[in-house]
Amino acid sequence: MSLTLYPLEGLPLVSPGDDLAKLIAETLPKNGLTLQDGDVLVIAQKIVSKAENRLVNLTTITPSEAALDYARITLKDPRLVELILSESREVVRVRKNLMIVEHRLGFISANAGIDHSNVSGPWGEAADWVLLLPQNPDKSAGHIRKQLEKRFGCQIGVLIIDSHGRAWRMGTIGMTIGLSGLPGLVDLRGQPDLFDYHLRITQVAASDELAAGASLMMGQAREGLPVVLARGFPYPLREASLSELIRPKDMDLFR
Amino acid sequence: MSLTLYPLEGLPLVSPGDDLAKLIAETLPKNGLTLQDGDVLVIAQKIVSKAENRLVNLTTITPSEAALDYARITLKDPRLVELILSESREVVRVRKNLMIVEHRLGFISANAGIDHSNVSGPWGEAADWVLLLPQNPDKSAGHIRKQLEKRFGCQIGVLIIDSHGRAWRMGTIGMTIGLSGLPGLVDLRGQPDLFDYHLRITQVAASDELAAGASLMMGQAREGLPVVLARGFPYPLREASLSELIRPKDMDLFR
Repeated sequence: MSLTLYPLEGLPLVSPGDDLAKLIAETLPKNGLTLQDGDVLVIAQKIVSKAENRLVNLTTITPSEAALDYARITLKDPRLVELILSESREVVRVRKNLMIVEHRLGFISANAGIDHSNVSGPWGEAADWVLLLPQNPDKSAGHIRKQLEKRFGCQIGVLIIDSHGRAWRMGTIGMTIGLSGLPGLVDLRGQPDLFDYHLRITQVAASDELAAGASLMMGQAREGLPVVLARGFPYPLREASLSELIRPKDMDLFR
Repeated sequence: MSLTLYPLEGLPLVSPGDDLAKLIAETLPKNGLTLQDGDVLVIAQKIVSKAENRLVNLTTITPSEAALDYARITLKDPRLVELILSESREVVRVRKNLMIVEHRLGFISANAGIDHSNVSGPWGEAADWVLLLPQNPDKSAGHIRKQLEKRFGCQIGVLIIDSHGRAWRMGTIGMTIGLSGLPGLVDLRGQPDLFDYHLRITQVAASDELAAGASLMMGQAREGLPVVLARGFPYPLREASLSELIRPKDMDLFR
């Protein structure tokens, strides 16, 4: 019983309209791998967003008054701030160079997950192009999962992750932004411990633990490997959604 | 290039005074494993704390006035609150059933990491016994590492982890509380991305990513497996300490 994380080498650069499930299916055998029951594919948000053409050119954006106000505080490009606001439900904290928001998907993140690195426009030009998160990452994960389950004839999970900063700690770690077919939370409530005490820790964020581990193998710079096959995920697969990982605002002491 | 996480089976129950490095060294071959250059051993805090006899019997504790005050708010045992305060630098949030503090080691956690599950006293009795975190987890990790490096003749890392709750998200994940011989943070600043932009994400909390992934394989209930061998950690090993993962208070917007 062990968990192995295989980053897939040789995935082509992803462009808008690409069929990610097909690209992954064709890349697996080049790595000597196939899919089997219980496998989880962990996919970096960036290639899902690119395949779904979530690219936006900043020259097409006109900042609102609110965006101009936040841009004065953060010293960010007002057009980028406009996009951050349009992808968010609420601004949580702003400082120079920093804008932390509740994303419309429910999680808290810097810049609503909008990314400027490893992004280029339709003709390869990088300036002014940014990348938004997928419209509905749970749905994206489900779509990729169904195609791959059909093609390989097995039951798998698909996890879409992004790198998030954290309160209190330095550095980013991979976190779930969408999932299909694997549990987000695993509930251990009521299970006795070795001395028949009930467990203090009752809910494990299993998909976030996998997201972080897989992120370790993706790299972040030129050598990025945006798909990791996880073999040996220790909990039973089931239907799930991102919402189970989001702490309700009225239960959150750090908003 | 892949990462495999092997939870070690057959580690005996750990008691105060046990030599953890020796127990681990003797358990590896039972799992068909040995240590090699670049391996990282990930160890649950609980067995380190037990080996170092960080058990405290609550009947020996007299709560202070401050502890009695916090006990009225949290409805926790005032003697436990006294221990939490004695292990902390600052109380960050309190509510019914909840006490979030800055631990004297620098991180933010619930109950200063003090644990009541899977804990028993010298005669196996569970009531009234609790377990504090190791006095100095970096030092504990370094001590275990040096013994194992000597015994196996190779360079490894040792990571001590605990399960932490998080702001904004449900569920716990494994996080670093002490380390030796592997990087906590990996700095990617200045590395160009695919389109020669400098990376937005500059520092990866590599040991926290590993902590989370390994925690997935430890389980939490009766079947707990407190040691995981990680083979294939993708970054160069180096000296490190927990402090590199702690966000300075004046850089933290969520205190």
